[in-house]
Order: sequence, then C-alpha cells, then structure tokens
Amino acid sequence: MNIKETAAWLLDRDKFLILTHKRPDGDTLGCAAGLAQGLIELGKTAYIYFNPEITNRYSQYVENYYAPDDFEPAHVITVDLASLDLLPDGSEVYRDHLDLSIDHHQSNTNYAQYSCVDGARAACGEIIYELLMELSGKISPQIAASLYVALSTDTGCFVFANTTANTLRVASYLVEAGAPIAQINKELFRKKAKPRIILESLIMGSMDFYHSGGVAIASVTKEMMEKAGATEDAVDDIASLPGLIEGVIIGITIRELQNGVKVSVRTTHLVDANIICSKFGGGGHTMAAGCTINGNMEDAKKMLVSAIDEIYPVMNI
Amino acid sequence: MNIKETAAWLLDRDKFLILTHKRPDGDTLGCAAGLAQGLIELGKTAYIYFNPEITNRYSQYVENYYAPDDFEPAHVITVDLASLDLLPDGSEVYRDHLDLSIDHHQSNTNYAQYSCVDGARAACGEIIYELLMELSGKISPQIAASLYVALSTDTGCFVFANTTANTLRVASYLVEAGAPIAQINKELFRKKAKPRIILESLIMGSMDFYHSGGVAIASVTKEMMEKAGATEDAVDDIASLPGLIEGVIIGITIRELQNGVKVSVRTTHLVDANIICSKFGGGGHTMAAGCTINGNMEDAKKMLVSAIDEIYPVMNI
Repeated sequence: MNIKETAAWLLDRDKFLILTHKRPDGDTLGCAAGLAQGLIELGKTAYIYFNPEITNRYSQYVENYYAPDDFEPAHVITVDLASLDLLPDGSEVYRDHLDLSIDHHQSNTNYAQYSCVDGARAACGEIIYELLMELSGKISPQIAASLYVALSTDTGCFVFANTTANTLRVASYLVEAGAPIAQINKELFRKKAKPRIILESLIMGSMDFYHSGGVAIASVTKEMMEKAGATEDAVDDIASLPGLIEGVIIGITIRELQNGVKVSVRTTHLVDANIICSKFGGGGHTMAAGCTINGNMEDAKKMLVSAIDEIYPVMNI
Repeated sequence: MNIKETAAWLLDRDKFLILTHKRPDGDTLGCAAGLAQGLIELGKTAYIYFNPEITNRYSQYVENYYAPDDFEPAHVITVDLASLDLLPDGSEVYRDHLDLSIDHHQSNTNYAQYSCVDGARAACGEIIYELLMELSGKISPQIAASLYVALSTDTGCFVFANTTANTLRVASYLVEAGAPIAQINKELFRKKAKPRIILESLIMGSMDFYHSGGVAIASVTKEMMEKAGATEDAVDDIASLPGLIEGVIIGITIRELQNGVKVSVRTTHLVDANIICSKFGGGGHTMAAGCTINGNMEDAKKMLVSAIDEIYPVMNI
C-alpha cells in the first residue's frame, strides 16, 4: 500500500498494537512511539508491545505507550521490521496475525497482510512522518521528538551515507514542530557510557599499523573488556573504529573469544573485504566482512597481515 | 543591509576579493568558496585571499579561487569574520578598505562599510545560501558542496545545540543541488588524524573521577603530546572530552604548560563553571570557563577538587 492507502487503512480501524524489532534501535522505537501518539491524537487506542531487549537509552520514548496486560488488539502493526525472524521475544503469538508492516527495508519479506515499504528512505521514521501528515496534517511536539529520534539514529545524526535530502527536510519540519534536538543529540550522540570510553581508549591504544598506515588492526582482548567493565553493549559498532583513522584503507578489529579470534574487516571501496575474509572461510560484503581464526590474538594478526600481503603484494593504493 | 539589499549591492559591482578569518574553519572557507563561485557564475571576477593558516582538511574547497598576485580588487568582502583582530595574516593592507561583511556573529563590530549580519543563523553559510538564491535563484553542485561544508562544520554535522530548522532545511536543499555529503561527512566528521586518536586514547585513559563520576578531570601532559606526535591541531576542542562521558556534570581538562597548568572547565547547566574558575583568577561563561594554576598537574588536580568540594559541599546534583 502507498501512503494514502495506508493512512486510509489506519483511519478505518482501531485498537492497534505496534511491534518493534529485535535488539530495538532508535528508528524502530521512535517510529512506534510516533505512530502510537499519532493514532491516540486521532482518538484511537494504540499501544506498543514491550520489547524485552530495550536499553535505557530509549526507554523514555516508549514507556508511556506499553500495552496493559489485558489489551486485546484488533490490529497488529510492525515498524522497521524486515522479516519474521526479527519479531521481538515473546511476540510469537502475533506471528500469524500481522496486519500491517511499515518499513524502509527493501528486503522486507512481505510477511504481513499489508505492507507499506519505501526502500529509498534512510529511516522508517520518514515514512511514519508522511503517514501522520497524511492522516492529520500536523505533528505534535511529542511526535516530533519520537520521529527525530528515529531519523537521527538511523543516519548517525545525518552523517552516514544513507542521509538524503528528504531525511534533512523531514528533520527540519520536526524541529519546527518542537523536537528538542539539542537534548536528544546530546543524549544519543554526544554522551558515551564510561565502559565504552575506557574500552575505546584501550582499543585505540592497542592499534597496530602496517603498510605505511594503510592497514590498521585493533585488538579487543578479554582483559580489556574486564578492565573497562564492558558488557556486549559497549562493543556495539566497535569494528568501525580503525577505519576512522586518517589514511586507513583496511581497518581490522580482532576480538579474543573463548575459542579463537573473531575478525571484522572494514575497507574503503579500493579493497575487497570479502576476499580477505574468504581466505579464512568467512565472508560478507565488499566493504564489510568477517571470519573466525583459530589461534591466539598474535597468530591472528600475523595470519591477517600475510593474507593481505599475498592479496595486495604492492599495497600501492 | 538585508539579503535583498546585499544581493543588489553585489549585482551592481565587480572585482571582488573575499577574506576569511584567522584560524579558518569550514564555515568561513566554505562561505568564501560558495560566494566566489556564485559571483563567477554571474559573470563577475571574484577571488579568495590566501589565508596562510589554512589546513589540508579544507584546501581542496578554496584552492581554485586564490587571487593571482597582480589582482587588484575593487571591493573587499569578509565572510564569517566578527572583528578586525580576526583578519588573516598579511591582509592588513585591506583593513581600511573593507566594503562588506557577511556574518552570523551577533557580536560583529560593524567594522566594514556595509554589513549583512544575521545572528540567528547557526552557520554563515546559511546567509550565503540566501544571498545566492536571491541573486540567481539556483545553486550549482560546486556551490552546494562548499556551503554544505560551511553548514556542517559549524554545527558538528547538525549535532550541536545551535542547529535550527533553517540549518536542516538549507542542508536539504544543498543535497538536492548536488552536495556530495557522503564524501564530505566522511572526510570532515568520520576521519580523525592518527595523533588525535592516540592523544584522545591517552587522555581518556588518564581520566580521574570524583563525586561518584559527576566530576571528571582529564590530563594532557607534555609527555602525552610527544607520545602522540601531536601538534596544536590535535588539541582542538579537547576540553569537551570529559563532558562526553555519561554522568559527568563537571568536565575538567588540565594541560601541562612550560609554566603552570592550563585549566578548562565545562559544565551542564546545573553547575556554574565561571564560579569554579574565578577561584583561581580565571573566568568565562556559565558552562565553559578557564583559568591557569601555578604548580604541577597533581597540585592542580588537588586544588580543583577541593575548590569544587568547597563550592558544592554536598554534590547531590
């Protein structure tokens, strides 16, 4: 369904339950909160399914919309949820009763009865914005805050390559509508938890460089994790760190596991990460791939460096 | 002059030289490049004064517009330049012949014959955008790239509290006009020089916490600077680091100098940085202040902690 059809579908119905995806991020949660609030403002009943994996970071945006235990939804909607294996824990009961999926993943598997998917949007929040504008022509400050969380999370606050003119335009409207962006930006993009800061500092300090700085290998050891008091939360997106250093073309992060070493390779378009990882039985995409190496951290480093030497004998890139 | 008047003024004239400010950033340089290109597209002659302090980061945006040695401007324009003490080195010859100042600093001292100042804009680039739209109604991809550099630099890529709905709206138009934001964002906001990364890692590792993590003191020693191979460039905005840690209300950075210790204090609105620094003969603003302490780094730390204890005996904030 397109925006108009989806808006009409919502307008004709009531008693909605909204599902967010596994390991929920700001996009799925911001969409859920914005949509719930928009439907409530239209006089409807709408709740959000409590996602057990939600982190403190985002609780404040959704906690007012959690469904009471005795709520029996007439219609179940998913937001930013590409396929059934991403249904949140405990929501299996709704698996065969999913009425509408609103999503920006081109890969959406059309698991719901109706789908409103626009793969050109950087954030699903852009689609919810269009829907709510179609439905009521206005955005309340509460909705604006939720949708701003959605847009900014999925674009790293408008810095990632997926950011489009539409993302920025919608963000501009949301600010006009009252989204408190100074506060949201500070909480989501300028603050880091202490374990993350300490871990980053240890990782950055451990960085080894090869090929005149074109290759960087960052190590994450069990000892570092302990020293930083870091849980899995703190390791989120850690594989992007070496690639942030000027001049690095191949940024590798190796992590010490109980058995062996987990390897993440990030490259610029000049080098194929997939080829490097496939040497070790792994794989992935051209610019992001992974593999596991049996051995200790020093072994892994040596093996990776010689694999790169072999593939790019003269690293004149 | 307002936008219309300034546009008319430019349209009536020719042979412009554009000056950027001392220690030039992306806003002043992006404005200069965007304005020069816009004037050239109108069939005029416009050059940028070579600012000797320009860094590699921004050279590519302005180097095509440098004035030849024999260029004799009929009109001199400054962009993003608030007062005469910010004139770039070597430009003193123009000091008494500044015709137009285009600026977003409310504090602009009206040093030029004409001024076009709008203190409500996060970046001076927003004003240049309006001017060029008034002049020709269109923005070429080259102009879009330069002005996007201006907007994104002054707002930390739309994350700082100065970002407005207008900033995001103009950014959206610039993307539509062809600004290559994926590339610019990566260069300006995702890449860090190696000395900066190493220095940050050392500083973060040196952090001391007091008052249950509400107060953080980061140390920058001469040894760290050497170890990181860091020049003054790498220390830019370093005072904001401790404040990025979750829970920190008073973020202090102390830097070892030849004689004494330079102290930067950053606070949330709950605490007055100015009061803390005035204890040591320094001062500044409510949320950002500085002072110098005679003594070594350990002395400075102790003195700062007891000053805070004294001012906030029960740091129950």
